[in-house]
Amino acid sequence: MSIRMTARTIDGKAIAAELRESIKREVEELRKLTGKVPGLATVLVGDDPASHVYVKMKNRACEQLGIYSRKVELPATATEEELLALIEKLNSDDAINGILVQFPPPKHVNKEAVIRAVAPEKDVDGFHPKNVGELFLGNEKVLVACTPLGVIKLLEHENIDVAGKEVVIINRSNIVGKPLVALMINRSATVTVCHSKTRDMKEHARRADILVSAAGREGFITADHVKEGATVIDVATVRREDGSLTGDVLFDEVSMKAGAITPSPGGVGPMTIACLMQNTLLAFKMQNGVGDFSARR
Amino acid sequence: MSIRMTARTIDGKAIAAELRESIKREVEELRKLTGKVPGLATVLVGDDPASHVYVKMKNRACEQLGIYSRKVELPATATEEELLALIEKLNSDDAINGILVQFPPPKHVNKEAVIRAVAPEKDVDGFHPKNVGELFLGNEKVLVACTPLGVIKLLEHENIDVAGKEVVIINRSNIVGKPLVALMINRSATVTVCHSKTRDMKEHARRADILVSAAGREGFITADHVKEGATVIDVATVRREDGSLTGDVLFDEVSMKAGAITPSPGGVGPMTIACLMQNTLLAFKMQNGVGDFSARR
Repeated sequence: MSIRMTARTIDGKAIAAELRESIKREVEELRKLTGKVPGLATVLVGDDPASHVYVKMKNRACEQLGIYSRKVELPATATEEELLALIEKLNSDDAINGILVQFPPPKHVNKEAVIRAVAPEKDVDGFHPKNVGELFLGNEKVLVACTPLGVIKLLEHENIDVAGKEVVIINRSNIVGKPLVALMINRSATVTVCHSKTRDMKEHARRADILVSAAGREGFITADHVKEGATVIDVATVRREDGSLTGDVLFDEVSMKAGAITPSPGGVGPMTIACLMQNTLLAFKMQNGVGDFSARR
Repeated sequence: MSIRMTARTIDGKAIAAELRESIKREVEELRKLTGKVPGLATVLVGDDPASHVYVKMKNRACEQLGIYSRKVELPATATEEELLALIEKLNSDDAINGILVQFPPPKHVNKEAVIRAVAPEKDVDGFHPKNVGELFLGNEKVLVACTPLGVIKLLEHENIDVAGKEVVIINRSNIVGKPLVALMINRSATVTVCHSKTRDMKEHARRADILVSAAGREGFITADHVKEGATVIDVATVRREDGSLTGDVLFDEVSMKAGAITPSPGGVGPMTIACLMQNTLLAFKMQNGVGDFSARR
């Protein structure tokens, strides 16, 4: 008789809550030490309802952790020049340590210009080429994109070492796949990057000790895609027609085969926001020359 | 009866000579147009004999192509401050479009500081975090590291498309493996990065449609590492005890199995210097706002 073990569920919500608690404590300590608190400016252009929800979540997270948050809204008709001028002002505003421009901006605004306008030291999204370049070159004492950072923190929390492991990443975007490739190379994983042009996706997925999927397609990862005992990290959040949320991974069947697995929702998502808070704190510390910069990882 | 075909040899020396010819022509055209020629400053600190040879090769390549080259030498005792001050002067010198600091610098000099001191627009080695970040984010209208660029140019010359192909790179250094990962992701290859911590190197190598090896170990890649018909790019230059040069790949046996193969020496090496010349020309064009910036790739 064989006993079927189900995978350990990696509880992103709980791990994110822990991280937020520790950030809250550090913010309070630094407030006592310096009389100042970290400040995050959220910049929202236009009236996309989903973007409003995301920004509100970020503002609320700030409030809960004692981080000052400033909500800046521009009408959908705002020009690129107006947005860039606003960012320039925030770049030199001492009360603001982090600047988050909610994406996507309106179509008439050049996203690439916006990314490059934010001062690298206030780039809490970790999108600026300078920060990306430093990360890729192995210098992680910079602001790193929140979602990939959240994935690393989940693995660290679960004591899943990546050195020498087969890591397969299904995503090559600038905000998820690429920074995660850099983080994984820096940690001595053997990394494979898959994407829509990859021919043998399943073969690659089945090789993975750690499979990170961010395809954004429900049911994309089945039990057949997963090696026995592998760690499966579901980065995708897919909204079903009925409004409910899921991820790439067929959780029930994959958890009968994987060794550890994140749910979605409730896995990487909460870590992304917690890491945004941590980046804001880190930016504050770097700009004020206080605290331990490297404690983040 | 089966007929055994040997691999097509990719003649890096001939392809590099072609590239140099086209650079020479463009330099001459631009000279007529602007009255100016591209200028490269080579900076050499100390008296390492190998470094002297490399710098001399680069200066000679400039002369042959009509590029102005300025040789700057500092004694091994030069301080980091002196070197950084020199770079600062070259950054604002209009006759100099590209700055190459020959590595390694003496031990008392911080290599990371030197890399960041060179103005990104004069960074013909493509080492600056800003250039690396832009490349990784998919913007290739920047200066890109010469060796990975040379690999791409060899493949392009041979009409070997990488989109959707399995590319396995054995190297994760900042000057070869990482920029090549970026170039390959940008071209829609499925990329795997292997290195000293990789467990199943041979299994990975055997999957490759395009295998790029830069391990620096003679005999590292045998026929058994190579899939029938694969393209094998040998980036390594290994000096044997008798002074002769070779690469990672056992050329004779691998060429009985591969579809195409670069020799070493005579493969990627000559492309690296040709790409340095092309970067100097590109830097000149960008700084003077003349010519076609994108023709390079």
